[in-house]
Amino acid sequence: MRVLAFLDDTAGTLRDPDEPHIRVEDLGLMRGDGIFETVLVADGEARELRPHLDRLARSASMLELPEPDDEAWQRVTRTVIDNWTGGEFALKLVHTRGTDPDGEPTAFALGIEIDPKVFAARRDGVAVVTLDRGIDPGLAERAPWLLLGAKSLSYAVNMAAGREAARRGAADVIFTATDGSVLEGPTSNVIIARDRTLYTPPPAIGILPGTTQAAVFRGAERAGWSTKIEPVRAADLASADGVFLSSSVRKLTRVHTLDGETLPDSSAIHAELAAAYESVYA
Amino acid sequence: MRVLAFLDDTAGTLRDPDEPHIRVEDLGLMRGDGIFETVLVADGEARELRPHLDRLARSASMLELPEPDDEAWQRVTRTVIDNWTGGEFALKLVHTRGTDPDGEPTAFALGIEIDPKVFAARRDGVAVVTLDRGIDPGLAERAPWLLLGAKSLSYAVNMAAGREAARRGAADVIFTATDGSVLEGPTSNVIIARDRTLYTPPPAIGILPGTTQAAVFRGAERAGWSTKIEPVRAADLASADGVFLSSSVRKLTRVHTLDGETLPDSSAIHAELAAAYESVYA
Repeated sequence: MRVLAFLDDTAGTLRDPDEPHIRVEDLGLMRGDGIFETVLVADGEARELRPHLDRLARSASMLELPEPDDEAWQRVTRTVIDNWTGGEFALKLVHTRGTDPDGEPTAFALGIEIDPKVFAARRDGVAVVTLDRGIDPGLAERAPWLLLGAKSLSYAVNMAAGREAARRGAADVIFTATDGSVLEGPTSNVIIARDRTLYTPPPAIGILPGTTQAAVFRGAERAGWSTKIEPVRAADLASADGVFLSSSVRKLTRVHTLDGETLPDSSAIHAELAAAYESVYA
Repeated sequence: MRVLAFLDDTAGTLRDPDEPHIRVEDLGLMRGDGIFETVLVADGEARELRPHLDRLARSASMLELPEPDDEAWQRVTRTVIDNWTGGEFALKLVHTRGTDPDGEPTAFALGIEIDPKVFAARRDGVAVVTLDRGIDPGLAERAPWLLLGAKSLSYAVNMAAGREAARRGAADVIFTATDGSVLEGPTSNVIIARDRTLYTPPPAIGILPGTTQAAVFRGAERAGWSTKIEPVRAADLASADGVFLSSSVRKLTRVHTLDGETLPDSSAIHAELAAAYESVYA
C-alpha cells in the first residue's frame, strides 16, 4: 500500500499516489532541485522525526529553499501514519522548489512499503565495496555551492554507485575521499566498532549528519559503549571489530564483506548494538 | 506560451503543461534519476538535433537507462515545433527512469519561451566567476559512477553555483578542477580565443561534449580559424583574446568580466564568431 498527503494549512490533503500530481516544470523534476528525508515509522511512531525535520531545514538552508513549515510537516506525518493500515513503513518527506523559483514549494509526504530486501539486510548483513568519491575532506567547507552534506533530490550519483556495487557482486557502497578517509554510504552513514568504542566520521567533511547513527550512538552509550565522531580511515575498516551502515529504514546493518574480503564476524556486536538502538524506542 | 508532448508510438501526445502529468514516485523527481537536453529552435528548425540526440543516448548509457527511441524523439520534436506559434524557443527533452526501475521511462518534450535575460546576455555578454568544482581531471575516467559528463536531472549543484555567482555580482560560473584546469559552466561549455585559434577543454576530463561549442568550431573553421580541443588553464583565461560560454539557448556568450576583473574587449571577435556560428544554419 501507499499513502500520499500534500502539505497544507490543516492536516494535509490525501491524494491517490497512482494519479499524477506533479507538473513537468517542477524544478524538483527538471533540476533535482529539492530536498528529502526518509523516516522509519514503527509501532505508529515516526522515529527520529525531530532530527529528520532539523536536517530537512538544514538542507533547505543549504539549497536556499524556503524554510520548511515544521508544524505542517508534523501534521502531515501524523496524517500519513493515521491512514496507514499495515505495519512498519518508510515515510518520504519531499520538498522541491516548485515550478517557479520565487513561488510555492511542492511538499508532500509519501508512505511506502519496506522492500523485503531490507529485512534480509537487517538480519544477514551486506557485502559492500568502497568507491572513490573524488573529493577531499576540506571541500565541503571550501565550496558550499557543491551542496556536500545536503540531502538533495539530485541523487543520480548515489543510484549509479549502487549499480556499480551490484556489478561487483555487492549490495552497498562506502564512499572514500581522495585522502583515504571514509565518507558515507550513498544512503547511509558508516559506523565502526573497536574496543567497545563506536566511531563515525564528522559531517564537516561533507557528509550527512546521520539521524539513525545518532540514535545508535545514544543507545550504545546507555549500554556502556564510548562513541567518537572523528575521521575514519578506509584502511582501518578491515581491522575493526565491526563495520556497520546506519540508515533509517535499514536501521543498523552489518557489513560482512568488504571489497570481496570477508570481515571478522561481528554478529554478536551487531546484535548488541541493534538491541541498544531499539532500546531508544522502548 | 508552452507546448508539451509526451513520447508515444506516433507523433507524440500533446498535453496541457498547466496540468500535473508526473507521479510523485517518478524516479526523475525522487532521485534526479534521468537525463535531459535543451535544444534551441530557431526558424522552425531544432538546431543541432542530431548531436543533442546523440548526447541524450550517451547520457542514457552512462546512467544505464533504456536507450532513447531516436525516431520517437524526432517525431515529438517535430510535433512541438509544429504546435509552436511564436518565434525562437527552447525545447527541453526529458527522459527519466519512470516510477519503476524495470518499467517504462517517462519521456516528454517541452517547448518554453526564452527568458529575456538570455537575449541581453547574447548581446551584452556576462560577468562570470570561477568556482572550485573540487575534482581532478582524471576522475571521470577513474570513477564512472560519479556520472561526470552525463547530462542528468541531478542539477542541484549547478543551480547552487548560479546562486553563488549572483551573490558575487556575476551572472554565470566557470568551474575549475583541483589542478587549475578549466572544466565547464553549470549549463555551458567554455571556449577561449587566442591568435585566431579557439580552444575548449576535452570531454574526457569529466565535462559535457558541447553541441553549440561544436557548431561554433565548425563555423569558425569555415571562417579561417583554427580550433583545438585541449586542456585550458584557469590562469590563462585573463590573457586570452576572448573568453566565451557556449550553450544552445544563449548561443555564444561573451565573458566581459572574470572574478570581478574586466577582460580585454572581445566584442569584435565575438561578433565575428557569432556570425560564423549563425552561418552554420544559413
